[in-house]
Amino acid sequence: MRAVDLIRKKRDGEVLQRHEIEWFVRAHMHGEVTDYQAAALLMAVFFRGMSGPEIVYLTRALMESGTILDLSHIHAPKVDKHSTGGIGDKVSLILAPLVACAGVKVPMVSGRGLGFTGGTLDKLESIPGFDVNLPLDRFAQIVERVGCAIIGQTVQMCPADKKWYALRDVTATVDSIPLIVASIMSKKLAEGIDALVLDVKVGTGAFMRTREEAADLAHALVRVGREMGKPVRALLTDMNQPLGAEIGNANEVAESIAVLQNNGDARLTELCVTLGAHMLAAGGLETDLPRGETKLRRHLADGSALAKFRELVAAQGGDPRVVDDPALLPSSPLTADFVSPVAGYLYSMRAAEIGWAAMSLGAGRERAEDAVDPGAGITMRKRIGDYVERGEPICACRAATREKLDTGLRRLTGVFTMEAVPPAPTPLVGKVVDETT
Amino acid sequence: MRAVDLIRKKRDGEVLQRHEIEWFVRAHMHGEVTDYQAAALLMAVFFRGMSGPEIVYLTRALMESGTILDLSHIHAPKVDKHSTGGIGDKVSLILAPLVACAGVKVPMVSGRGLGFTGGTLDKLESIPGFDVNLPLDRFAQIVERVGCAIIGQTVQMCPADKKWYALRDVTATVDSIPLIVASIMSKKLAEGIDALVLDVKVGTGAFMRTREEAADLAHALVRVGREMGKPVRALLTDMNQPLGAEIGNANEVAESIAVLQNNGDARLTELCVTLGAHMLAAGGLETDLPRGETKLRRHLADGSALAKFRELVAAQGGDPRVVDDPALLPSSPLTADFVSPVAGYLYSMRAAEIGWAAMSLGAGRERAEDAVDPGAGITMRKRIGDYVERGEPICACRAATREKLDTGLRRLTGVFTMEAVPPAPTPLVGKVVDETT
Repeated sequence: MRAVDLIRKKRDGEVLQRHEIEWFVRAHMHGEVTDYQAAALLMAVFFRGMSGPEIVYLTRALMESGTILDLSHIHAPKVDKHSTGGIGDKVSLILAPLVACAGVKVPMVSGRGLGFTGGTLDKLESIPGFDVNLPLDRFAQIVERVGCAIIGQTVQMCPADKKWYALRDVTATVDSIPLIVASIMSKKLAEGIDALVLDVKVGTGAFMRTREEAADLAHALVRVGREMGKPVRALLTDMNQPLGAEIGNANEVAESIAVLQNNGDARLTELCVTLGAHMLAAGGLETDLPRGETKLRRHLADGSALAKFRELVAAQGGDPRVVDDPALLPSSPLTADFVSPVAGYLYSMRAAEIGWAAMSLGAGRERAEDAVDPGAGITMRKRIGDYVERGEPICACRAATREKLDTGLRRLTGVFTMEAVPPAPTPLVGKVVDETT
Repeated sequence: MRAVDLIRKKRDGEVLQRHEIEWFVRAHMHGEVTDYQAAALLMAVFFRGMSGPEIVYLTRALMESGTILDLSHIHAPKVDKHSTGGIGDKVSLILAPLVACAGVKVPMVSGRGLGFTGGTLDKLESIPGFDVNLPLDRFAQIVERVGCAIIGQTVQMCPADKKWYALRDVTATVDSIPLIVASIMSKKLAEGIDALVLDVKVGTGAFMRTREEAADLAHALVRVGREMGKPVRALLTDMNQPLGAEIGNANEVAESIAVLQNNGDARLTELCVTLGAHMLAAGGLETDLPRGETKLRRHLADGSALAKFRELVAAQGGDPRVVDDPALLPSSPLTADFVSPVAGYLYSMRAAEIGWAAMSLGAGRERAEDAVDPGAGITMRKRIGDYVERGEPICACRAATREKLDTGLRRLTGVFTMEAVPPAPTPLVGKVVDETT
């Protein structure tokens, strides 16, 4: 087989066969297919797309490039949640201990922040001592004993996806639905899970800007799950403004703790409970969604979710005292408000820009090798629909240096639109896509 | 500037600016832009195309990556011809000495065969001693003294084109009009010429299979010439069957000598005279095409073109005796006829397959690093429109080994179509595209 022939085939809109995709992925891992040939194929896929079977073959080939976790000795439903990425999305920190209280085991392999999106691992690492680089056997032990564990992608899992993703990142081939689907699903299905709930973000702070794109992605993800024998359901959720008030790392941990204390942001709490109920349903523990939600709200109210989070932090080497005293979390010294230049209703925001501003403050990464300042970030004072006086703060920025603070503040100009009337409200949770839809 | 941003821009159908294209080509040469990023850009160009100005910027950037010959001390029109490649295309060997007789200087930088097309350099190297690797100053001296010289692309000229072409070859991005145009024009305009005549081949033995594609390519080539201040004209010529009877290397030299002896294939002679008249016109020596043709036919008749070829061979170190005794040229020992299985008119041929068959016989290369057997090749016994008896030879194959001979013969099966009536004749020279069209 020759790489150039497979590239030409895809370029000309033909469908690649299973053995061709498997050969390409494997030969690229072994260095027989070069990075420039892989890059050409990726760009051809960007333009030509992939058929349903092609996406499944690619997912499987990426997944089988490394270790596939075997958690079959854990006799409980193992369900994970994956978000396509947004601004202020700290759901994993809350959801993992919350559903673990209800008997779901959550073996979560998560990612770092890049560009305008933050990463669960960076947030957790703002807890002193928290270790996201556990060996896989230790990870499996914590999942079994505590009910949830959150680590980073190891070199053993999906090495081909890692190689492909690094290439996509520098060749402008990230935003291709077949490639996104194969990347997500290969990593998640390598976790040894029984089912998966996907939070597909849609809006100005998401990769998918329109409901149509998001629905296409959701359907493609669910289809691959079905073909690979794993129940997958996807929820389209609103990302036209940050989720919760906090964007950053340590401040997002603090906000997550507030939700776990049953005293947090209502919209963020609602999303966690909704996603959690779907995880219980997907795991077969409670198929009635309202009953599942009630059960989870009880775990927030009675302190068991908070206790589970404390247990998780301790199991992964973190300082559990932060759970009761978030003031122990790092916080950068300099703050400044971003105030509204006019009075009016906060009508819309270019939410991804808030993510870029947070990155400029030090809370995120421009390149994968950059360091993150755990104490930097943004606190939203206003939400879409709120009335704002002239000179009133829309949000507050926090950074380690004057220069970063100024850069972050400047990036916020032009991000918020004010109108004389509030916009029609957008539902937090839109369409639910599963095998029946 | 970041490569990924320029790739994304092109991917999304935007137009790249001059400084962006120049930066990309230069940064790729210096290794700041990687091969995989260049490959992704090439594939994006394949799908999105390039605007007229973009093609000009790319041509200039590739050209300026190396030495641009300065032949301004030669006080005569310097005109070259370039063919887009076909089967049995030995025109350069005849045309260069022919128009040199009429006062045009021809500084020809030519290529080698690859895949189904042969190369002028390989053909010339079948003449014992002929050196196509002359230093540029020696090349310029021969152009001035003899009137023509033919060498290969040196490392100094258009190194960026060389790098891009090697990448295109293995990433299925060769057949893109903007990339073909920039590659051809950068190399030709680096020769220090005043004008250029292009032979755009169209048909089953050409890269461009339809007249529409060929016309698009011709217009794009002429447009770049105009923008860069060099008169360029392009002739669309028939490549639905090999040009002349011989396909190979030494046998094509022998056939060229026959034309220069005014005793050669009529169709091949006609094409050389037509292209030559356009070179005289483009160089301003004889703007009336029929008068130019008459002049050139006289140079064939009076032996001056043959003498000029002898002079060229001697100047580049070749054995000039072959010009008078082509039997001195190498010839492989084994021959076999390919006979017609039925009687009928030879209606059509998949001419590129004849090129592939010649390659299998040893006359061409599958990979750039392969060696060529100068004595191998094919001799056509029949042309389109000829009546062929059952069992009568359509062509004869020649190779060094039985295995190669058999492989070549097998590749010819299914190539020729016979019908009860002859096809309507196709004109040899179709449309002429110049700055006025």
